This record gives sequence, structure tokens and C-alpha cells, in this order.
Amino acid sequence: MIQNQVPIVEKILNANDRLAEQIRAQLDAAAVLGINIMASPGAGKTSTILATIQALAGQKKIAVIEGDTAPVTIDADKMVAAGVPAVQINTSGGCHLDASMLGNALAQFNLAQLDLLIIENVGNLVCPATFNLGSHINILIASVPEGDDKPYKYPKIYRGIQALILNKIDLLPYVPFDVEYFRRGVEMLNPGVRIFPISCRTGEGLGDWNNWLLEQIQVLKSRPK
Amino acid sequence: MIQNQVPIVEKILNANDRLAEQIRAQLDAAAVLGINIMASPGAGKTSTILATIQALAGQKKIAVIEGDTAPVTIDADKMVAAGVPAVQINTSGGCHLDASMLGNALAQFNLAQLDLLIIENVGNLVCPATFNLGSHINILIASVPEGDDKPYKYPKIYRGIQALILNKIDLLPYVPFDVEYFRRGVEMLNPGVRIFPISCRTGEGLGDWNNWLLEQIQVLKSRPK
Repeated sequence: MIQNQVPIVEKILNANDRLAEQIRAQLDAAAVLGINIMASPGAGKTSTILATIQALAGQKKIAVIEGDTAPVTIDADKMVAAGVPAVQINTSGGCHLDASMLGNALAQFNLAQLDLLIIENVGNLVCPATFNLGSHINILIASVPEGDDKPYKYPKIYRGIQALILNKIDLLPYVPFDVEYFRRGVEMLNPGVRIFPISCRTGEGLGDWNNWLLEQIQVLKSRPK
Repeated sequence: MIQNQVPIVEKILNANDRLAEQIRAQLDAAAVLGINIMASPGAGKTSTILATIQALAGQKKIAVIEGDTAPVTIDADKMVAAGVPAVQINTSGGCHLDASMLGNALAQFNLAQLDLLIIENVGNLVCPATFNLGSHINILIASVPEGDDKPYKYPKIYRGIQALILNKIDLLPYVPFDVEYFRRGVEMLNPGVRIFPISCRTGEGLGDWNNWLLEQIQVLKSRPK
């Protein structure tokens, strides 16, 4: 009865990849850096985005797309309060964003007026790893209280990222977390990937992250079209 | 091209429900309490299960089924080291267990020799909520560092549970977490659901949880077949 499942899933993934290519072309044409932020629920996606907005808002024009599984606008409201345009995508229980949802949300912004588009994916370490959104950079936010074994348990999402943020380092004195064991797991899956240890609470490490992000915006803008 | 997606998903869910009923019948016939433990990655599923085994192992015969997205046996190894039989289900990247996977794993135990079957679902707040496993009790483990807004953001999983564990209460002094805001969110979705605040690190609250679980095992055993 369910033997059609795999071909159908493949068709969905292929259709998604084509839409993702279109999104990438739109972002490239407007020289807008698109970053897709993935994480477990509660790792600090929203806090990191708010800290990034606060640091960069004077220099760069930013917009945010918020993925949520329910029609609550808690995060989108925070972005608007921080002074940036935000659109919420409600996945109606779905465990990830896809390129089709993103394309619809993107149409609500004037890309010519932006430098940076931040996409906050649904809180999930499994599903978002499978769906290309056309973003230039995929970021994973891990957090200290989640534990140091997550690269070993959720390898797929660690493989597909261009940078890793390790948030809540202010909690290192209070929870068991072996930073070297964590780093070894990451390195095995994604050799040389840049890791930013940060604390959104204390501000530690945010400078390096913000500078790196500014560099990536600059690299995109200086690329011949 | 993808218009068949919804009917296919419905067929899968219906097939899953029928298998879940069969699993429930097997557990009932053997008077084995089945509990399905769900949580975000890193909320403390494994730690809570290990603490439960340590407390109950002298009194009850326990087995564990471990759901993982990758072929790593980190958690199953911990269960075996704790002295209980354990079977690992590798979902090969899938974001939840389903009744078919569980049925296959269940066949590896002699249910007549067990009192309690603990199922550790894949770390995920979205997908596991949709798949009935036939378990008697569905438990969600939330954790303090995840933040107090999770009931509002992931309502579906909070609706389908019979008890809620709030782990890592030892971190309350170090992270912003409004217990009353969290409780109100839970109460709105699942009125009267039992909440167990615990810390696997300090042991606080584990006694209440273990006593409640022993009661549930007793209730099942005293039920007329």
C-alpha cells in the first residue's frame, strides 16, 4: 500500500532543488546574502539573530523569515520590535521549511533594498538538513546544554553546513560538556568548518561571528554578476 | 507532480495506526507498560531513562528501545551497561519512530519477562507527535535551557502526552526561564497534565517521577485482561 512512498519523496526533493536554484538566482541578482539558520528547539536561533541584528543594523539592511510549526508570531514579533522587516511562515506542523514556502515569503520583500536575508528554520536537527533553500550559507547553532554528543547522533545536519555556532558557552561551568569531544565529532563530519563559540547572554564571541558575517556579505557584493 | 503527496501520507498514517493497535494488544496481553519518551535533542531522554532504570531495576524488569537517526549505538550501549536489554532502531535519517519499526524491535524481546518497556524516540519536537506507537503513556521531556516558550511554539507534541517532565531544573539560576509562563502554556494545551520538575544531575524530583511510574505499572497489572 505504501510502496510509492520513495519515488514520491524523490519527486518532491527534485522539485524543491529546482525552486531552490531559482531562489539562489534571485538572491545573487540582488546581491543579498541568504543565510539559513538551523538548530534544535531552544538552542538560541532567535537570540542569535536578534544579537546579529543589533550589531549589524547600523551598517546593513536586514530582513528575517521566521519558520514556525504553529501560527504563533512570538519570534517574528521580536524581529519587528528589533526594527527589521519579518515574514512568518507557518508550516502547519511540518518539520522544516522548503524552497516553495521560502519563495512565497521572499516575494513579500523588496530584495533591492536588502543586504542580508536571515532565514530561521523550524527547530529541528533532522528534517531541515534534507531541504535545500537556495541560501548561500547554512548555519547550525548547537548549544552547550544539548550535550557534546550531538554531532555523532545527528551527523547529516553537521555535514551540510558552512559554519557552526556553539551557543550558551556561559553554561560550560554548570553542565558536563567536553568541548574537544564535540569538536572532534564536528571535524570528522565537516573538516575545517568554522566554529564560533558564543554566548548570547554575555555577548562573548559575538564579535567574531558578526565580523565573519560582514565579510561574507562583502564577498558576495564584490562578486562579478 | 506532487499532488499525490497527501493521500500517500494518509495511507501511511492509517497503516501506522493499525500496527500501533497490534503493538498495544501485545503489550496489554503481557501486562507490559509501554512508555514513549519524546524530546528535543539534548533535553535528557537518555539521562532520565538511565536514572529510572537505576531506581526501578531492583523491583521491575525493564527493556529499552532506542530510536536514532544514525547507526551509532551510544545510547543503546549505555542501557546495556546499565544492565537492561536494549535494541536500537536506526531510522536512517528519519525524524521519528513508527509502529512498523517498533513492531520489528519488539519481536526481539520476550515480553512475558518484562514489566516496563521504555521507548526512546528520535530527538525531535515535531515528527514523533504524529506517529502513534501503541504505547500506553506518551511522555515529553522539556528542559530548562530550551526556554519557557516551547509549549507555545510546538503545541502539537504538548497536546498528545500523558505526563511532562521538566528536566535540568538545576540550571534555573543560570538561564532565563519563567516557570509560570511555561506552566500556563502547557495547561492551555493539555489541562491537568501531570508535570514532574526534575534534575538528572542532582536527582531532585526523580522520586516523584519513579513513584508515579511504579503506580502506572501497578494499574496496568491489576487491570482485568
